[in-house]
Parts: sequence; C-alpha cells; structure tokens
Amino acid sequence: MRVIVVNGPNMNLLGVREPDIYGTQTLGDLEAEIRAKARELGCEVVIYQTNHEGDLLDFLHREAPGSTGVVLNPASFTYQSYALFDCLNALAVPVVEVHISNLYSREERWRVNSITAAAARGVIMGLGFHGYLAAMEYLCDRDQ
Amino acid sequence: MRVIVVNGPNMNLLGVREPDIYGTQTLGDLEAEIRAKARELGCEVVIYQTNHEGDLLDFLHREAPGSTGVVLNPASFTYQSYALFDCLNALAVPVVEVHISNLYSREERWRVNSITAAAARGVIMGLGFHGYLAAMEYLCDRDQ
Amino acid sequence: MRVIVVNGPNMNLLGVREPDIYGTQTLGDLEAEIRAKARELGCEVVIYQTNHEGDLLDFLHREAPGSTGVVLNPASFTYQSYALFDCLNALAVPVVEVHISNLYSREERWRVNSITAAAARGVIMGLGFHGYLAAMEYLCDRDQ
Amino acid sequence: MRVIVVNGPNMNLLGVREPDIYGTQTLGDLEAEIRAKARELGCEVVIYQTNHEGDLLDFLHREAPGSTGVVLNPASFTYQSYALFDCLNALAVPVVEVHISNLYSREERWRVNSITAAAARGVIMGLGFHGYLAAMEYLCDRDQ
Amino acid sequence: MRVIVVNGPNMNLLGVREPDIYGTQTLGDLEAEIRAKARELGCEVVIYQTNHEGDLLDFLHREAPGSTGVVLNPASFTYQSYALFDCLNALAVPVVEVHISNLYSREERWRVNSITAAAARGVIMGLGFHGYLAAMEYLCDRDQ
Amino acid sequence: MRVIVVNGPNMNLLGVREPDIYGTQTLGDLEAEIRAKARELGCEVVIYQTNHEGDLLDFLHREAPGSTGVVLNPASFTYQSYALFDCLNALAVPVVEVHISNLYSREERWRVNSITAAAARGVIMGLGFHGYLAAMEYLCDRDQ
Amino acid sequence: MRVIVVNGPNMNLLGVREPDIYGTQTLGDLEAEIRAKARELGCEVVIYQTNHEGDLLDFLHREAPGSTGVVLNPASFTYQSYALFDCLNALAVPVVEVHISNLYSREERWRVNSITAAAARGVIMGLGFHGYLAAMEYLCDRDQ
Amino acid sequence: MRVIVVNGPNMNLLGVREPDIYGTQTLGDLEAEIRAKARELGCEVVIYQTNHEGDLLDFLHREAPGSTGVVLNPASFTYQSYALFDCLNALAVPVVEVHISNLYSREERWRVNSITAAAARGVIMGLGFHGYLAAMEYLCDRDQ
Amino acid sequence: MRVIVVNGPNMNLLGVREPDIYGTQTLGDLEAEIRAKARELGCEVVIYQTNHEGDLLDFLHREAPGSTGVVLNPASFTYQSYALFDCLNALAVPVVEVHISNLYSREERWRVNSITAAAARGVIMGLGFHGYLAAMEYLCDRDQ
Amino acid sequence: MRVIVVNGPNMNLLGVREPDIYGTQTLGDLEAEIRAKARELGCEVVIYQTNHEGDLLDFLHREAPGSTGVVLNPASFTYQSYALFDCLNALAVPVVEVHISNLYSREERWRVNSITAAAARGVIMGLGFHGYLAAMEYLCDRDQ
Amino acid sequence: MRVIVVNGPNMNLLGVREPDIYGTQTLGDLEAEIRAKARELGCEVVIYQTNHEGDLLDFLHREAPGSTGVVLNPASFTYQSYALFDCLNALAVPVVEVHISNLYSREERWRVNSITAAAARGVIMGLGFHGYLAAMEYLCDRDQ
Amino acid sequence: MRVIVVNGPNMNLLGVREPDIYGTQTLGDLEAEIRAKARELGCEVVIYQTNHEGDLLDFLHREAPGSTGVVLNPASFTYQSYALFDCLNALAVPVVEVHISNLYSREERWRVNSITAAAARGVIMGLGFHGYLAAMEYLCDRDQ
Repeated sequence: MRVIVVNGPNMNLLGVREPDIYGTQTLGDLEAEIRAKARELGCEVVIYQTNHEGDLLDFLHREAPGSTGVVLNPASFTYQSYALFDCLNALAVPVVEVHISNLYSREERWRVNSITAAAARGVIMGLGFHGYLAAMEYLCDRDQ
Repeated sequence: MRVIVVNGPNMNLLGVREPDIYGTQTLGDLEAEIRAKARELGCEVVIYQTNHEGDLLDFLHREAPGSTGVVLNPASFTYQSYALFDCLNALAVPVVEVHISNLYSREERWRVNSITAAAARGVIMGLGFHGYLAAMEYLCDRDQ
Repeated sequence: MRVIVVNGPNMNLLGVREPDIYGTQTLGDLEAEIRAKARELGCEVVIYQTNHEGDLLDFLHREAPGSTGVVLNPASFTYQSYALFDCLNALAVPVVEVHISNLYSREERWRVNSITAAAARGVIMGLGFHGYLAAMEYLCDRDQ
Repeated sequence: MRVIVVNGPNMNLLGVREPDIYGTQTLGDLEAEIRAKARELGCEVVIYQTNHEGDLLDFLHREAPGSTGVVLNPASFTYQSYALFDCLNALAVPVVEVHISNLYSREERWRVNSITAAAARGVIMGLGFHGYLAAMEYLCDRDQ
Repeated sequence: MRVIVVNGPNMNLLGVREPDIYGTQTLGDLEAEIRAKARELGCEVVIYQTNHEGDLLDFLHREAPGSTGVVLNPASFTYQSYALFDCLNALAVPVVEVHISNLYSREERWRVNSITAAAARGVIMGLGFHGYLAAMEYLCDRDQ
Repeated sequence: MRVIVVNGPNMNLLGVREPDIYGTQTLGDLEAEIRAKARELGCEVVIYQTNHEGDLLDFLHREAPGSTGVVLNPASFTYQSYALFDCLNALAVPVVEVHISNLYSREERWRVNSITAAAARGVIMGLGFHGYLAAMEYLCDRDQ
Repeated sequence: MRVIVVNGPNMNLLGVREPDIYGTQTLGDLEAEIRAKARELGCEVVIYQTNHEGDLLDFLHREAPGSTGVVLNPASFTYQSYALFDCLNALAVPVVEVHISNLYSREERWRVNSITAAAARGVIMGLGFHGYLAAMEYLCDRDQ
Repeated sequence: MRVIVVNGPNMNLLGVREPDIYGTQTLGDLEAEIRAKARELGCEVVIYQTNHEGDLLDFLHREAPGSTGVVLNPASFTYQSYALFDCLNALAVPVVEVHISNLYSREERWRVNSITAAAARGVIMGLGFHGYLAAMEYLCDRDQ
Repeated sequence: MRVIVVNGPNMNLLGVREPDIYGTQTLGDLEAEIRAKARELGCEVVIYQTNHEGDLLDFLHREAPGSTGVVLNPASFTYQSYALFDCLNALAVPVVEVHISNLYSREERWRVNSITAAAARGVIMGLGFHGYLAAMEYLCDRDQ
Repeated sequence: MRVIVVNGPNMNLLGVREPDIYGTQTLGDLEAEIRAKARELGCEVVIYQTNHEGDLLDFLHREAPGSTGVVLNPASFTYQSYALFDCLNALAVPVVEVHISNLYSREERWRVNSITAAAARGVIMGLGFHGYLAAMEYLCDRDQ
Repeated sequence: MRVIVVNGPNMNLLGVREPDIYGTQTLGDLEAEIRAKARELGCEVVIYQTNHEGDLLDFLHREAPGSTGVVLNPASFTYQSYALFDCLNALAVPVVEVHISNLYSREERWRVNSITAAAARGVIMGLGFHGYLAAMEYLCDRDQ
Repeated sequence: MRVIVVNGPNMNLLGVREPDIYGTQTLGDLEAEIRAKARELGCEVVIYQTNHEGDLLDFLHREAPGSTGVVLNPASFTYQSYALFDCLNALAVPVVEVHISNLYSREERWRVNSITAAAARGVIMGLGFHGYLAAMEYLCDRDQ
C-alpha cells in the first residue's frame, strides 16, 4: 500500500497564512501527523507540496498510477484548475479531496464551487488536519 | 461521550433506493456499523431516522444539547430545509454533515448547494458508510 | 389493479381556495369522480390527502410498492420538496403528476419548475379534475 | 364535433428518430390510433404534420376556428416559435399541448421551458401515444 | 375580536439561538408581552408555535377562518414553504408577517426573498418584539 | 420613391387577435391607411404580409434593394428570427421597425428584447397604426 | 423627543397617483394623522417631503443628528438611491423605513429589492398610513 | 392643444457631446424645429431642459395635467430614474418617449432596458430630431 | 461516395452581405470550389441553399439517408432552430458544421452558443471557404 | 494649469461617516491637502462638493471645459448615475476617478461595478487621501 | 514554411485518458501523423507538449514569431488561461485552435466557452487527429 | 525601504502586444522609469517579471516579507489566479495592484472583475506607466 498526499499552492505558508481560518500549525506539523498515521496504517506515504500547477500534474502523472490512492488538498487550484480536474479524471486511482476549512461556511459564495471535486471519489472539509488522516484511513481500509 | 447520528428522509429505503448510487446495504447494516464503531470508540450513540422535518428539529432540540456532537446526513433536506440550517446554527455542539455519495459529481448541478452544510463544522461526502464512522472518530478524538 | 391517488397540502381547501383558478368543486367532489372512474376501470383505488410532507413520504413508502401506479398532485410540494422527488425516484411504480391548472400559464415564472415532475413518468396539467381520470386510465390501460 | 390534431417538425421521422426516447412506432401508427379514437368518440378528426412553421400557422388560421379544439404536439417549435405562441393566443378554441416524452426528465434543462404551452389550455407529457388520445377525450367530453 | 399569533420553527429556542441577532428574551417573554397587549386591545388571542409545517397548515386551516387576523412569524419557513404561501392566499383574513430582525440587513442576500410575504397584507421587520404588538394593533384598529 | 411595408406572422388576424392590445381594426384597414399616406407623400408603396420567415427573407432580398426604405413590423419574428436580423444587416436601405403596442409595457419581460431592432435604423412602438405612417414619413422626408 | 418624518418623490401626488394601490387620502391627510400621533406621544415632529434627492440628503444631514429617530418613506428612491443608503449609514439615529403598500406583493419582482432598507433599523410595509404611526410609536417607546 | 416637450440631463450639450451618435445640431436647433412643428400643428408648446431629476418631477407635476400630452427624452434618466417612472404613471396624460439614437443598436446591452418607457404610451427611437416631431403629430392628431 | 453541402438563410447574399466579415466572394464562387474539391475527392456532391427552415428539413430528410455525410453551414439557424438540431440528431450520417467566420471572436457573446453544433460530429469555423473543403475531406477520408 | 476636484454626496460627512472605512479626517482636512499639493504642482485648483447630481452636472458643464483635468470622487453616484457617466463622456478633458477605499475589497459585491469609471481615463482606489494627490500629479505631469 | 503544433496539459496521457472520448491512439501516434503531413506539405514542423502554462507562453513567445502559423490544442487551458488568450492576441501569426472532440456536444455546458478561441483565426473540433492535419493544410495553403 | 515591483505574464511583450492599448514603450523602458523613481524616493527596488504563476508565488513568498510593499501588475492572472489572491492575503505587507489601462473601459465586461484586487490595499488603473510610480510613492510615503 502506497498513499500519495499532495498539498497545493501557498500551503507552505500554513501556520502563517490566515491563522484564524487555518490554525497555527505548520506544514511540517501536518506532514509529521501524516507520516505517523502512515506508520499506524502500515502503508508507504509520498508527500508533496508545490505552488506550480504544472509540477502538480507531472507529479501525479508519475506517482499516482499503481498507488493505493491520492489525498489531495488542491488549495486555490480548487477554483481555477481545469487541468487538475482533467488529470484526476485520467488517473485510475481513487482520490479524496481534503480542505482544512469548510468551504460551505466561507463567506465568499464561489468558494463552494470546487472544480476538482467533481473528479474525486469523495471530499472531506472542515475537519482540520484530521481530514487528511481520515482520507488515508479510507483509502487503506476500503476494499472496493 | 455521547454522539448523535441522524438520517434524513427516504434513508429508510437504503439498499432499495437507487442502489447504483447508494449501494445495496440497508439502513440496518449502516446502524450496525455505527454501533460497532461506537463500542470501539467507547462512546454512547443515539441513532435516529425520520421522514419528517419537524420531528428532526424536535429531536435535535432535545438530544443535541450536552452531547459530544452530531453526525447528520440530511438527505434531501440538504436542498430544501432552512429550518434545519437555523437549527444547526442554534445548537452549541459540533455537527459533521455526511453524504454517502459525492455531491460534486452528481450530474444535477444544484446538488452541490447544500443549505445545511454552511452551519456544520465539516462535511464528508462520497466515502459511503465510511463517512459516518470517520465523522464519529473526529467528534470523539478532537480536543478543540 | 390498485391505483394510489394522492393530493398534497391545502388541497383540502379545494373549492374554497382561489376558485377562479381551481374551480368551486370540493375535494369530496373530486374523490367521488375518482371512485366512479375506478369502478369503471375495475381497479381498486386508495385516496389520500395530507398537509404533512413526512406523512406523504411514509404513505408512499407503505402503499406504492406493489400498486399499479400513483396519481400525484403534489400541490405546493411541487416547488419545494426534494424529499418527494427522491421518494418518487426510489419507488418502482409509475407515477403521473397531475395539476388542475396549467403551470405554464401561471404568471409567476417559477411555477413552471416542478421539482417532482422530473421523477414522474408523465405530467398532465390544466385539464381540471379530468387530469386525474386520464392519469388513472393511463396507468390501468398501459402494458409496458 | 371536429378535433384538429397537429404534429410539428421531424415528427414524420417517428419510429426512426431516437427510438429510445420516442419508441419504434411510426407516425402512421399514431394516426391510426387517433382515427380509431375519433370513431370511438364519434367526432371528426383532421390530422396534419408539417416541418414548416408558416404552414402550421396557415393551417391553424384556416382550420381551428369553429372546431372543438386542437391537439398540438409542437415538437421542436416548443422551444423556438413565438409565432405559434401568438397564434394559439389568437385562436378562440381550446388547445391541449401533447409531448410523447416527459420534458421535465430530459437532461437538457431548457427542454422544460415550453414557449407555446403558456397559450394552451393544458399539457400532457410523457404518456406516449396515450397522450394524444387523452387530449381528444378531454376536448370532446368537457362541457366548459 | 380574536387574533391568531403564530411562530415558526426554532422559535422555541428564542433567547438561546443567536442572541446577538434575536436578543436574550425567551419565547415565554414574548408570549407574555403578546397577552398583555391583547388585554390592552380587548381582544382574544390564540398563540401557537410549531416546528412542523404540516401542523402549521392544519392549525391555520382550523383557526384562521372567522378570526380578526393573523400575526405570523414564519421563521425559516419564510424561505422554503410554498405550502404556507398557498395557505395564506387561501385564507380570507388579513395576515401581517413579522420578523424580529431586518431581513434587508442580513448579510445573506437570499434572506430578503420572503416567499410567504407576497401573500400577506403587510410586513414588519427589525423592530424586535415590538413588531408583534404593532401588528396586533393594526389588525384590531383597522376598519377595512 | 418606393417604400416597402411588411407585416409578419399572425398579422392577418389583426382585429380578431387580442383586440384589447391590438385594437379592432383589420389588416385591410391598416393597408388602406398606408396607401392613403403613400398617395399623400407621393411615393410608391409595396405591401406584404406573410406567416413564413423564408418568404419574408426572399421578399426582402428581392424588393428592398433600390427602395427608399423598409417599414417592418416583424410581429413574433421580433423574438425568434436571427435570420431576419442578418437579412436587415445585409440590406443597404434604412429600416424602421414598427410595433403597434409598446413592448416596454408588456408584462412579459422578454418582450422588450427585440432581436431584429438592433439591425434597424429606428423603432416606433405603441402608437398604433400611426406608427406605420410616421415611419413612412421619416423614410420619404429624410435626406441623409 | 423629536421625530423626523420624510416622504420621497411623487408623494405630494398621494391620493391622486394610482389610488387603487395607495388609496385616496392625500399627503395633507397623512400629515394630519402624523401630527395627531405626535401629540398623543408627546413628541415633537418635523415633516418633510421632496422630489429632490439632494434636498433629502441636505435635510437629513441637518435635522437627523440629535433627533429621536427618522421615519422614512423613500418612495422611488428605494430602488435607485445609493446616496440615501450611504446617508442612512452615516447617521447615528435609528431609521424606520415605511411603505404604504406591500413591496413583496407588487407584481414587478424588482420592487422587493430596497437599496435603502439595508441601512434602516426596521421596515414596515403594507399597513397604509398606519405604518407611519407604528414607526413613530416604536421610536418613542423603545429604550435601546 | 398644448404639448409639453422635455429633455433630460446633458441634452444642453447636444451638438457637442458624442456627435457621431447624436449629430452636430444643437439643442437650440432642435427647439427651433419643435416650435416650427407646433406652429404647423396649431398647438401651443412648452419646452424644458434640465439636469436635475427633482426639477423634472416638479415641472411635470405642474405642467402636464391638462395638457394634450408629453414628449419626453429622458436621456440618462432612462436607465436610473424610478422616480420618473412613477411620475409618468401618476400623470393622466399620454407620454411619448423619444430617443435620438436607436437604443437597441447601442453596444452596451443595458441601454435597451428603459425604466421609464414602461410608463409611456409609446416610444420612438433612432429617427433623430424627426422623432420629436412625429411624437408631436401623434399627440395632436390622435383621437383616443 | 455522396456528400451533401447545405447553406442556410441569407447565404445567397454572400459577397454582398457584410463583406468585412464574410469576404467578397459569392455563393457561386463557393459552389465552384466545392465542386472542384468533389472531383478531386472522386465523390458525388449535392449542393443546396435555402432561406426556409422547413425546406431545409425536408431536404435533409430526403437526401441525407444513405449519403456519406453532410457539410452544413446553418447560418442564422445556428442560433434559432431547435428543429434543425432535432433533425441532425435523427439522421444516421455524420454532419460537420461549418462557419466562414470564427464565432468565438464575434463581439456578440450569444454568437458562440450554436444550438445545432451539439448534434454535429464536428465543427470548423473561421477558415473561410477552406472550412467547407476540409469538411468534405474529413467525410470522404475517414474510416470510422 | 487648472485642475477640478469634485466630491460627491455625503462626502461633507467625511470623518464622521463610517470612520473605520473612511478614516477620521474631515473634508476640510482633505481640501487642505489638495490645496497644498496644487501649490506644490504650481497649478490652480477648483474644489467642489455637492449632494445634488444636477448641481454636479451643471458644475462640470461650466468648469471642466478648458481645464487640465478633473479629479472626481463620485461617492454613491458611482453606483447610480448614468447622467454622470454621460457627462464624463461628453467632456473633452481627462478624468481620474478616485475612491478612498478599495471597491474590490468591500463585501458588497455590487460595489465593484462603477458606472462612471468606464468614462474615466483612470481610477485610483484604496489609497486614502493620497489618491487625490496622485491623480493631481498625473493630470499636471502627463504630456499626452 | 514552418508550422508550430502545441498540445496542452494532460495530452501526454492521450490513449490512456478517457479513451471513449479521445480514442486509444497515443500522443506518439498523433505526432507521427503530424510529421507525415508536414512532409506531404513540404513544411517544417515544431512539436511541443507541456503541462505548464508558463512554459507554453515562453515557448510561443520564442517560436511563434516568424512562423507560418500555430496549431494549438490548449486542452484544459481552454477554460482557464487568460494568459494564453493574451499571448495569442499578442502574436502576429495566425492560430488554429484544435480540439479532438466536439466541445458543443460535451454534457458539461461550460465546455463550450473557450477563452482562447476568441484570439484564434479559426477552430476545428470533433474531427479527431484529422483536425490537426486540416489545420496544417489551412496554414500552409492559404494566401491571405 | 525596499519595494517589490512585479509584472505578470506576457508583460515581456510590452511595446509589441496590442500597442493601441498598452503603448509602444517596452518593459525595459518601464523598468528604467521604476529604477529612476526608486532613486528619487531613496528606496531599494526589486523588479521581477514572469510568465509562470508558480514562480510568481515562490518569488513573493521569498521577497515580500520584510519589504515596504509590493507593486503588482498581475496582467492576465488578474482574471484567473485564486492562488495569487490567496498569496496576497497571506503576505503581511501592503500591495498596490496596477493596470496600465482602465479595466472599466475595456469592452469585455469580465475585465472589470479582478480576482486579485480584493486582496490588495489599493488599485491604480488607466494611468499608464505613471501608475507604477504613483504606487511606489504611496508605499514609501505612507506612515500607517
């Protein structure tokens, strides 16, 4: 079992950027939790963060095939990247889209319309770091 | 710890209704999985299903205060019940909204616009029965 | 053969409510015509009226399976009840939606957008009480 | 009693065109059923099909006045012909609009918005050929 | 003179629910003010609160005819209940719709679009409990 | 000087069709007034009415070039005929679009959006038959 | 206590303008009722009517500060004056917006969208002259 | 016979402002043509131009009653003045709205939506100064 | 091999109509190029132009079945003819829609929304006469 | 060199009105800064503030011609005054529109749509009083 | 003669990604056909594929000037890249946009709205690999 | 003091790309003016241009913290980059968005909707190169 965990643009600023929405823990803290959960689940984990849409596509083209599944927080690409939507559709592995905050309770209405989520197996939002861990469990436990 | 798990209208038909979307397992199967997870988490669980919006409101007014949190699959009330939205806002406990299928990949566009989700802490969709269990874990584990 | 005929909210005020649109005949008059037509068609008929969406769902869950079909005038639920839409989709019997007046000629534009009709086999509108009788004939005569 | 039955553009391809939606019976089959029903009702029937909007207007201007009523399947003119809408408004006889399939369950959203239906007495949709016959019965039986 | 005063869903939580919008006084406090005003006006008053749309319809069908008028705070039904809109249209008595807060200054845009208000004689919003009392005065004083 | 005056579909029913909007005078009455005005202006006049869009295009292709201008009441083609819009753009002569009633005061909102008017020199609406005569005067008098 | 009562454009035509909507009583009649109510409440009243938006702003800038509150019927400015909206926001006194008729039941949909109401404390509509008096009572009685 | 001719804001810049749209003739030239036409028609004419909406309302309240009719070019008030719309509705005399250019062929789409035209008897647009003269003829000649 | 080439309304004005968009070559020039290409491809070609929607439908009903494919420039029917859309769906032969200019670069936004293109195999736009020839090559060369 | 600086409605309340958005400095403070900057630039300055749209038009008609340029803060007229838009288009001098706050970051979405800005040379927003001074520099320095 | 052929993001997955829409042939197969066509046309060809928008811009800035033209399949950039739209506008060479499938027949409505096509000379869609070859022919043959 | 000046995609083509909108001066000319202004203001300046969104994010993450402020012309990213919007929100330094032309006067309506501007302190548009210099002055002079 090998799970891919990807974070999109500006996620390297986690803990700094808008802490009232995203909390004060950093990307390093998140990745530590992810690795701990991977050990608990007995699965390999590949972690990646990028601010470049093209790099994200190249990475998924290379790493996703053959993996157990992808945990993806597209960050702002949620609202702009049809290329990522097409990429997810092309991949043969299940994808769980994760958002730290609840898109539905953001005051900007357009925040609800995730372009990429339509190509995912499922979505978890608003549960903070917990959402990544729950997505990993789903991918490793499920037998479909 | 006491978790409330509520299923909305037509969920009693689970396993019969549109099995290509919702699977062939019944509401009884789901409730059995929920009770097993509750035992694993060491928490009490109160399970409820109703086709009546008013009964759902009465139930939440009575049961939610003092509980650890609510796992709510509003089913069709997702798209029509501002009363449930107001009710969730009035409750002082965290709510996780769960959908068995992924709203974003339903072909009807309006399916994305959950009225109730804006009043929830978080949302899990598309992970089948697993979503209920992940929501219960979140409510029992979290320390915020 | 057993046909279910259901009338939605405020239909108990028929003959009193907006008689320039709905006529002066009462719900009792309508039900008498329906029973007469049932006798003519040689089919059993179950008639129901309710102002409660939840009762309507419970009723259909219990009575529709195994019947020849459902004649449904959802009245105002036409515009608000996704729960009824999901219920009709879940039933395995044909449904004919009936409206006494022609939705297309109502001056309020939104009156055209029936939520429930998308889950029905067909729709008859604007033919007064005649629409119920034609729907019953269709359900009893058709061989598909 | 004289009933006018009109079919709009491409209806001459009935049985050939999209048989999964419209069935495999031809326009000839439909007209035979209509004539049989006319004999049963003891009314005269005038049947017409055209692909030309102008011819349809000319025909209705000439034939509709003095008739018992019009059964009209506008086919694609449903979505494009304000001229037909104005024509129906100008006629002094009742019109029942008929569609073989249920417009509300077509996946193209715009299919619901019939321009012409707003000028009709009533609409029957989704009941196949049966819709024409029910419309004829309504026109011949009604006493309003 | 007999005035009907009705409060819609979640209003039983008044004083608890979102006190920054609705204040800290309870439904009991409101009802006491209403009864005092009734005594002052020399009119009988019937007070009702429900979370069930169907019960609200049944209640109005039974109590409204013959009364001086209805003071109605539809709460969330404002945004979802076409059944209540139709019910108000069917009643022969004047209705004043009351909202404790000013819908126009709520940040959610859709809050302005009251479905039910179009069937009311008038609307009072944003004046707190005072709105109920002013509505009662209007109904008892007016001579139209 | 030669002026073309064209009336679109259903205008042959003038005086019969919706007389509260269009008056009780017939197309013959209108044409008589037009001919009288032509004599007064000392110009030749060619008058045409058709229910066929294609005939209208053929007629304008043949008659408009070389004329002083066109007075056009497109009737329902106003709302549906991009072909007529393109035709007017292709003609090298000025066109005045005339409507007997005032489109802006029709209750249907879409009535305002004339497709064809965007290709006309000017528009006169709401002045009854007078509009045709004023358009003729404009075309014959102007020196631009 | 000093209450400001302002009427917007065309209100000087009251009793003449569209009497089926606004009644046959004149602005003089209204002002007499307002003065009587002021005497009853023991408050000073300043009454103003203008057809000029700029004059209305100048007046409110000068008179509103220090007053008990403003009763404002913006008339057509309701739909057009962002300047009045900004002015109300800038004032430190409570404003009650009053409309003689019920905006929600006007057939023009846009009539519901009051620009100015979002800056008011509350709104009273559809209660005729009574609305002004109720607004005055609210401003003089309230203790917030 | 007495005709009122009113020009709205910026019309005093006629001949200077955007001459490719409005021509190079000045407001003085226009008024001379209007006076000549009045002499020809044997009617009195009152001409007014203002940049102030309030002045325009005051003027029409004072001058329109008792006149034969109003020729009104609302200029930019076309798109912003609900006060003028209400004023025209309140007047008991016919109004012809005139625009020098054709609103339908302006490239800004919103230019088509005249607020005021819905309250006018008719509209003439795109015929230059000729439109004013044709409107005067209509008002003086018509006998309805 | 037999290819059908059809041109819609106003195409007979080619070379005259808006030459800055469509060029100065005539329909005769276009047809000569089409015939030359047909000879080069060794296929039979049937060429047709009409301003009548009904004639276009009749022609396609008669000629399209059994042919290699259809090259169709619907001209203005692109934006108005659902009848043509239904006709293309009913035909069992591939259709290539051709436009001389690029719809996407027309300034009118609605120009992009081709009704008919959704029923075509493919679309070529903006390549002038070359588009017709490329469509013919596609139909004759392809082996799918 | 002579620069015109104009402030629209309610700007006389600067420092009082919504100080969290517009700051606590008054219109007098702003005008002092403007005069100081004019002295620094060696240009004459004419300063004007009004709450009357008509006065603003009259002022610009009189003062703008022949000036170096106009610095305009239309305040609420930004969202309502097509008359001002037309006026700016008619003037032959460059206009810089200034807003103290950033329209794009206002929470009301409609705040972004400035009617008047489309007729300006440029726009400066969100820079406080600095925006006026930068606009003056632009007008005096530029050589285009 | 030198033609540039560019494929956008995820096109490297051709043959793998959604083969029911895009076929089973790979990008290598496509490039082989393109090179063969280049040899047939006697033109040089530069082929490029990238998942990076910035690389695509850099490539076009460097290679397009001086070339005969560009054949561009923007893939998902079609729907998201205003940068590519601006880039095409800035280039002085003709661009033909190619899509393997027909955008108009995709079920997602937004698929029709190509941002980039508005800056292209023409568009070919739905003809599979053939579209690239036809575009190359157009660029090499045309003499405009 | 250190100011960051960033130009987005295609800005390296300045002077070549659409010179009627953006002028004929090149990016080098602009950068020379910026450096001269920096010397005048006595501040350090870091200048950057890129066609890559990811590079722009990386650059701002690295350079913006600790700087006096950012002058940003997002070019086409204005309309597409939510990633840039989020990045600006995350930075703790003031940002002034600059556009060479006036977005409000571009004919494409969507040009007004800047995604990024909502996260900026202010916006300057339409003042050509002058806008960059004014933004630098603002950042260096202001003391907030």
